[in-house]
Amino acid sequence: MTVIGIDVGGTSIKGAAVTDNGHMFDTFTIDVSRDEKGSDVLDRLAAAIKEYMATHSEIGEVSGIGMGVPGVIDSKRGVVCYSANLPYWSDLEVKNIMEKLTGLPVKITNDANAAILGEVKFGAGDNCETAIMLTLGTGIGCGVVLNGQLFEGNEGKGAEFGHSTLMVGGRQCSCGRKGCFEAYASASALIRDTEEAIEAHPESIMKTIAVQFGKVNGRVAFKAAREFNDPYAIEVVDQYLTYLGEGLLNICNIFRPNLIILSGGIANEGTYLFERIQQYLKDRDYGYKNSPEVKVVQGKLGYDSGKIGAAALFF
Amino acid sequence: MTVIGIDVGGTSIKGAAVTDNGHMFDTFTIDVSRDEKGSDVLDRLAAAIKEYMATHSEIGEVSGIGMGVPGVIDSKRGVVCYSANLPYWSDLEVKNIMEKLTGLPVKITNDANAAILGEVKFGAGDNCETAIMLTLGTGIGCGVVLNGQLFEGNEGKGAEFGHSTLMVGGRQCSCGRKGCFEAYASASALIRDTEEAIEAHPESIMKTIAVQFGKVNGRVAFKAAREFNDPYAIEVVDQYLTYLGEGLLNICNIFRPNLIILSGGIANEGTYLFERIQQYLKDRDYGYKNSPEVKVVQGKLGYDSGKIGAAALFF
Repeated sequence: MTVIGIDVGGTSIKGAAVTDNGHMFDTFTIDVSRDEKGSDVLDRLAAAIKEYMATHSEIGEVSGIGMGVPGVIDSKRGVVCYSANLPYWSDLEVKNIMEKLTGLPVKITNDANAAILGEVKFGAGDNCETAIMLTLGTGIGCGVVLNGQLFEGNEGKGAEFGHSTLMVGGRQCSCGRKGCFEAYASASALIRDTEEAIEAHPESIMKTIAVQFGKVNGRVAFKAAREFNDPYAIEVVDQYLTYLGEGLLNICNIFRPNLIILSGGIANEGTYLFERIQQYLKDRDYGYKNSPEVKVVQGKLGYDSGKIGAAALFF
Repeated sequence: MTVIGIDVGGTSIKGAAVTDNGHMFDTFTIDVSRDEKGSDVLDRLAAAIKEYMATHSEIGEVSGIGMGVPGVIDSKRGVVCYSANLPYWSDLEVKNIMEKLTGLPVKITNDANAAILGEVKFGAGDNCETAIMLTLGTGIGCGVVLNGQLFEGNEGKGAEFGHSTLMVGGRQCSCGRKGCFEAYASASALIRDTEEAIEAHPESIMKTIAVQFGKVNGRVAFKAAREFNDPYAIEVVDQYLTYLGEGLLNICNIFRPNLIILSGGIANEGTYLFERIQQYLKDRDYGYKNSPEVKVVQGKLGYDSGKIGAAALFF
């Protein structure tokens, strides 16, 4: 079976044909602007898909189109309810519109859900029963697979683990509440912590590294801590890992997954990150002496997880 | 179909025959002591069940025995891994032993899981798809039903929502971590807050109410706030509801349930509790304008939820 997997982002939409054994063919891309009407984008997307199918006979017969879209998605009805990055997609009946335009069955889900489905079926997940994937980026995207199935919550609006409080009355979060996991463990939060540490301690090597990178990003503190043993960077990283660790512990105690998959730039920090986080969990989870081991690993599919996972809505 | 539902507690075990339409017959009780060997208790329990069946012909043919046990339970294997209140039940193969003793099929689960199953199938849950039940007692028991099925996590050891951090580095929790939901929103936490407020403000009416009740319990601050408008009690209740509300918001954002069921003594506080909590959630959940409504209600089955739910493992 071959399905077209579509990954909708804030600035571009990428697509590719994917087979049910996880093989991905050539990709295509169309640009998106925040200001374009959603239905106009879908017209262009449908045209791009038809063009792709017409020029890629090697993909064989296509059975459907799977789409991952950022925002609040009602996956049963196939509607984008609200997307912060795509304001003109609100209440857009993506499934109906795309089915009419292409004549193919269409399924949609949240982009973080698509990503975990891709990883569990064809990447780091190795078809495990219960897995959680966190994408540590501007925010924290979260996908949940329970008993081999995507868990989306009532009306497909759950699994927003990034918006669970880690600190009542704590840092302001973009969602309006204070103290969300996302406000402490996203890449944005790490960058803010790094900036504050550089401001308070301009003698830190982090300042030099930031100049080399051209900006303060999520790698600055990790590099300064790992390679230069910079005390201020170590403090930033330790604090970050504590918050990330506490959030992952919550996931362990609630879902007791076989696997936690981390993706996003921070997940590239390798063993320095994963060994410490693994130990943090091992030492602290509830009933830990009697708890099954939880592995924390990096995603394997990178940016392709969205396309492959969107297609996997059909597999 | 009739099943014997067994609710194992720290001081007694209660049982009753339950039909698959939720009717419960006479109950029976046997005492339990912390110091008794688990297999000896099971011998006595099996004898009590046989006696009950022999003297209650009206229950008809019995198809199995369902058991709810406090602690860490491997429900697939039917083993009690660890129970804080029943130390001599560790690694006890309850399912195998009870099947041999009674000749009937046996299923076991955690007591909080049994309670929610009872409520969802025959009580406040009204057979809804996705529900969470919290029992606000010494700790916080949590049961989760997703898509109509009990969710127990890998090896049946998940759904420990009481042990998710609400305050990193906060109050010491019995599980070893700091800042767990349980350390802020259990009845024990409310009692501690009330005691501290009385200590700090001996002029508070809470002191008089506590004397009337014979002790500081979970009702003192609620009664002083509701009936006497006591400022210190209002402060205690407001703080308690904030923590409870934040925990429930986390549940909403993660699971997006149709229903949250509260049980335990605090759930008897009626509209004063439920109206405020409902409003707290309505004002703050993630994507609230586009989120399905979550109802927060009191459990209907009271202490019978454990027996009825344990039997419902077969329905």
